[in-house]
Amino acid sequence: MTRFFETHREMLDKALQAARERGYWSPYPEAPSGRIYGETAKDDGEAAFTARLGNLFDLSGHPSNGKVVGKETSPYGLPLEITYPAADIAQLISGSKEAGAGWASATVEDRVGVCLEIIHRINRRSFEMANAVMHTTGQAFVMAFQAGGPHAQDRAVESVAYAYAEMSRNPATAVWSKPQGKHDPIVLDKQFRIMPRGIAVTVGCATFPTWNGYPGIFASLATGNSVIVKPHPSAILPLALSLDIGREVLREAGFDPNVLLLAADEAGAEMTKDLVQHPDVEIVDFTGSNAFGQWIRANAGSKLVYTEEAGVNSVVIASTDNFRGLCGNIAFSLSLYSGQMCTAPQNIYVPREGIETEDGHKSLDEVAQGLKTAIDKLLGDPMRASGICGAIANPVTIERVKQAGTLGEIVRASEPIEGQEAARTATPMLLKVDAAQSDTHLEERFGPISFIVAADSSDDAIARAAASARNKGAITAAVYATDDATLDKAADAFSHAGVSLSCNLTGNIFVNQSAAFSDYHVSGANPAGNACLTDAAFVANRFRVATIRRPAAA
Amino acid sequence: MTRFFETHREMLDKALQAARERGYWSPYPEAPSGRIYGETAKDDGEAAFTARLGNLFDLSGHPSNGKVVGKETSPYGLPLEITYPAADIAQLISGSKEAGAGWASATVEDRVGVCLEIIHRINRRSFEMANAVMHTTGQAFVMAFQAGGPHAQDRAVESVAYAYAEMSRNPATAVWSKPQGKHDPIVLDKQFRIMPRGIAVTVGCATFPTWNGYPGIFASLATGNSVIVKPHPSAILPLALSLDIGREVLREAGFDPNVLLLAADEAGAEMTKDLVQHPDVEIVDFTGSNAFGQWIRANAGSKLVYTEEAGVNSVVIASTDNFRGLCGNIAFSLSLYSGQMCTAPQNIYVPREGIETEDGHKSLDEVAQGLKTAIDKLLGDPMRASGICGAIANPVTIERVKQAGTLGEIVRASEPIEGQEAARTATPMLLKVDAAQSDTHLEERFGPISFIVAADSSDDAIARAAASARNKGAITAAVYATDDATLDKAADAFSHAGVSLSCNLTGNIFVNQSAAFSDYHVSGANPAGNACLTDAAFVANRFRVATIRRPAAA
Repeated sequence: MTRFFETHREMLDKALQAARERGYWSPYPEAPSGRIYGETAKDDGEAAFTARLGNLFDLSGHPSNGKVVGKETSPYGLPLEITYPAADIAQLISGSKEAGAGWASATVEDRVGVCLEIIHRINRRSFEMANAVMHTTGQAFVMAFQAGGPHAQDRAVESVAYAYAEMSRNPATAVWSKPQGKHDPIVLDKQFRIMPRGIAVTVGCATFPTWNGYPGIFASLATGNSVIVKPHPSAILPLALSLDIGREVLREAGFDPNVLLLAADEAGAEMTKDLVQHPDVEIVDFTGSNAFGQWIRANAGSKLVYTEEAGVNSVVIASTDNFRGLCGNIAFSLSLYSGQMCTAPQNIYVPREGIETEDGHKSLDEVAQGLKTAIDKLLGDPMRASGICGAIANPVTIERVKQAGTLGEIVRASEPIEGQEAARTATPMLLKVDAAQSDTHLEERFGPISFIVAADSSDDAIARAAASARNKGAITAAVYATDDATLDKAADAFSHAGVSLSCNLTGNIFVNQSAAFSDYHVSGANPAGNACLTDAAFVANRFRVATIRRPAAA
Repeated sequence: MTRFFETHREMLDKALQAARERGYWSPYPEAPSGRIYGETAKDDGEAAFTARLGNLFDLSGHPSNGKVVGKETSPYGLPLEITYPAADIAQLISGSKEAGAGWASATVEDRVGVCLEIIHRINRRSFEMANAVMHTTGQAFVMAFQAGGPHAQDRAVESVAYAYAEMSRNPATAVWSKPQGKHDPIVLDKQFRIMPRGIAVTVGCATFPTWNGYPGIFASLATGNSVIVKPHPSAILPLALSLDIGREVLREAGFDPNVLLLAADEAGAEMTKDLVQHPDVEIVDFTGSNAFGQWIRANAGSKLVYTEEAGVNSVVIASTDNFRGLCGNIAFSLSLYSGQMCTAPQNIYVPREGIETEDGHKSLDEVAQGLKTAIDKLLGDPMRASGICGAIANPVTIERVKQAGTLGEIVRASEPIEGQEAARTATPMLLKVDAAQSDTHLEERFGPISFIVAADSSDDAIARAAASARNKGAITAAVYATDDATLDKAADAFSHAGVSLSCNLTGNIFVNQSAAFSDYHVSGANPAGNACLTDAAFVANRFRVATIRRPAAA
């Protein structure tokens, strides 16, 4: 039974070390390469995905009320027509509770071993997952492979490593020997048991179902809780696939597979609220909107709630010695997955009087034009544009883009991508506003909508961007400046606002990117979320310690 | 400025080791001995306490609205007539916020050093503290010295050690170097900053103001938050004294002393609700009733809330090979501080058919009589009774005892302690009920009221006691059994109910006692509280990490 733990022990040790040192480390190669994943892996993955189309996703032994649900449609236009077993909440809760008893009694090593084996097997099926993520979220294939596959798996391993570190720092036993002067000491044998909370629910999101879902799922699972996964109705497949693999490993290891359950539903008939409020649910992980995040925080009672909500991310351009690199870098950040990332910038603050560059002074309009030109060049080739922008997950986002033209002066209009007529696509829209006269940019405009915001000065830009982060939430910020004084000011202001700051990015690294084992994703210190992927606070409260003490035998 | 950290470094290292190993360790001797604390320490402490009577407790530089508050009276009958500077909530918040900025910017080592120096100086004044605790809570002198002094200081050091461990596990900087195949790696320099939450409020209790107050105060302080302490109106002095010492150390270390503030108030005009709900308060630590704990949890919004509430603790007597030791041990647990401990037993479950002992079978009534006799003997000498029982903190408790006689068959009546006429005193009342016919014992009856509860069998006793813990909360449980099967059943049942279990205690160690660095006080897994003193979860979320990353210089 400790076979899986031993198999992955060396990897776990490296993960623990990486989490302490926070340099670069990844257990899973991010390249969608046949040399790594097997020469037939790409074709096999696509075939496995295709075989599911139009069929019931069978989760053998899963609770069911006899009905099926599922109305996913690909943002690329492909009809999926996959259905999933539906279960009533009472069935899910009782199934989860029943399965949870044995799981709670397992050793820490057995549970951690099972978790790592699940992640390992998910990794082997990264090409199949890439298809599933692509055709539910609209991410382009390579991004779906990376963000939905190895990068999500990294975050999963990270959360298991943190959970293991927290559980194993408590000794299983201790001898407590209290001196009594001339008399014999009082000696107690103590036993400390890791007790899980009970049932955990993970509420998935529409854009990064695995990357955002795995940390909560695996942190709860490793700490001994049974987990019910409630995917977004538009992105069930990636999580169903993950659960199917997980249930297979649980079964092999001698556990009830219902330790992992799927709460599939459809838009308009979501079971999320009833599930989150069920008295037997002890832990809720949520990724999604501020509005629903607030509802959960207000209605979950004394349950543990971990949220990643939304925010308004900013870039401050104060000065640069590489204007072309700056424009290219920001253009990519705005274009990647058409801005549908919680880490994508929305507002680009520029001093009203312009900035200094290696080519001398650039006016505000020249900066705006530089960005526009960089986006145009980046997306000039429709195939490349499609590979960067992917498709739009939610039709509402297309509507939002259409109506955004009135929010400011249009610097660059959003357009569909040529040759992608079957897909929902939209390239970045760039608007210009003045912070002294407008506040439309202060609301989150999810999708490929961004604003060049004129500010009084670079100090004013930093102050406004940091205030916006404190008030509306933000996960990332970027600053460009050639002087340390401005960089230091930005570092202080954004740190206080709980925002992760990137400085002077011009190369092949982007503010949107958050690397497991190094970047703390979401600070938990502003309205963009109350938790961080992954730190000790994210895992340490998912279990409790029970003590049993008795006098030592004389 | 790191002087204090270096001074206490060795002690901190030992504390960190103790928290990992969880054997016996204490930095502060618990004996109220002149050889340890100085030959004049006892007299000096009493003189310092006496000098405060009838006077204003001056907290130099503390915000004030010009008024004074304070109506503490000693449960021993001594009029205290100490007043404290009163401040409006707005003054407290703005003072705390202003002082907090500098504190938040201090290094981890500077903050931890200041915390440990504060605790060290509090330790040197343990005799003064003993008088303050005795004459506010009613604890007898030796207990007031130990629980209010060194044991509370142990818990303070423990929380600082946990805070240090959590903060220092995140590196301050890292180099992230991601390979790029044949190309140069992408290299980012990363900086990780520990960012406190802001303002923390600790709501103190009437019976253990320092022991229960210090962990939250010092955990918040060490992690960089400024702290407003809201003592119970009847036990202000011990916390005012602690804060006075803390403010002195802060001032010496170059910080604004208002990092620590006192929110003194009076019964009937408490400021707790307004303080807890203030939007600038980020963290709330609370010790007190379930009713108010629930109010705080429901009304604190998205603030972090850590509570120790109340519960109904049980003893299960299944069998014993030391009946006299059993009776003596339980008698002491019921008598100590007249049952006014969150860890004191209330319900003693005994099989209806009696138990087996080293002297053969004992009927239920014989067990009850054995306990009664043990209490009578323990408290036979009034001086000793006073030294064990102390006095009753709250007049309501005396009323509750008076009215409890109807709740069951009286085995032992509660009485005032002879010669202690000026004090509010009450020895343990012992009632007998049958679990099949009564549920009066299932409600918490705070103070010296306990029940012998007849159960169908020892299994039934364990099941009922564990169910009561899950429903009403419990912090401790005790079991007596000569067979491992019963002990194992009890261990499983109470662990699942989140209760710390003591087995077969008969010597000079009691179920009421919870030792820092070894016993996890409160599991956080039943209604007796949502947090544990102290584990990683208690400290890890009091700060967040902000990241700053920039390309490494080529």
